[in-house]
Amino acid sequence: MLSAIDHVGVAVENLDRALALYAEVLGLSLVHRETITEQGVEAALLDVGDGHIELLAPLGPETSVGKFLASRGPGLHHIAYRVSNVEEVLEQLAAAGMRLIDERPRTGIRGSRVAFVHPAATGGVLTEIVQPAPEES
Amino acid sequence: MLSAIDHVGVAVENLDRALALYAEVLGLSLVHRETITEQGVEAALLDVGDGHIELLAPLGPETSVGKFLASRGPGLHHIAYRVSNVEEVLEQLAAAGMRLIDERPRTGIRGSRVAFVHPAATGGVLTEIVQPAPEES
Repeated sequence: MLSAIDHVGVAVENLDRALALYAEVLGLSLVHRETITEQGVEAALLDVGDGHIELLAPLGPETSVGKFLASRGPGLHHIAYRVSNVEEVLEQLAAAGMRLIDERPRTGIRGSRVAFVHPAATGGVLTEIVQPAPEES
Repeated sequence: MLSAIDHVGVAVENLDRALALYAEVLGLSLVHRETITEQGVEAALLDVGDGHIELLAPLGPETSVGKFLASRGPGLHHIAYRVSNVEEVLEQLAAAGMRLIDERPRTGIRGSRVAFVHPAATGGVLTEIVQPAPEES
């Protein structure tokens, strides 16, 4: 059902400062940068092996990541598992009684199709499933 | 320097209940279970692709994970990057001025050699580097 850790999302106050850490100090390659207005974030993807670190800076204090930073501070935000068919996995999770944030997939970073499971269903871990865009897989 | 996301550590209240979620609902394979007295945890590793989820249940309230649960609740605890030479990477991180929790590697789960970087140096993200035991790599 889940084929890999696709990425780990990290909430940051300032994207450029975070990139200095992850790219320059930790040596990861920045492969994508995108403002996702619908999700209220500016995001950056860095490669690490087959997976990615997704840095997330809020577009404002009222966004989801903005509220996360205000209540918990910067740090680990979510984990995303790679799947080959996001609808199918969503159906399986719903059938297992899992509380979902997204009943249907929506567009994620770099043209992926994604859905979030509610952290109340996953022991406090905000969990995403992601089906990469075809050109990427 | 960092070759993959080796695992993501998740703090849980109860290991058996967490395993029911990760193994039975999410379908991950439990591959290892170990009490690491020195770290004050009972831990379980589940495979996902080339990486793992590491579930961490505290052995008591005064342990590191016990205190984490008391202050932040269950959820994402740390991220671990795979490296081929943990001493070498520790030296590079120290040379870059990164604050370390472990100046020298110690033994981690399943015979690995690990070291933690202080979250103050990594934007609030507790970060581990892990060199798997030879038989595993």
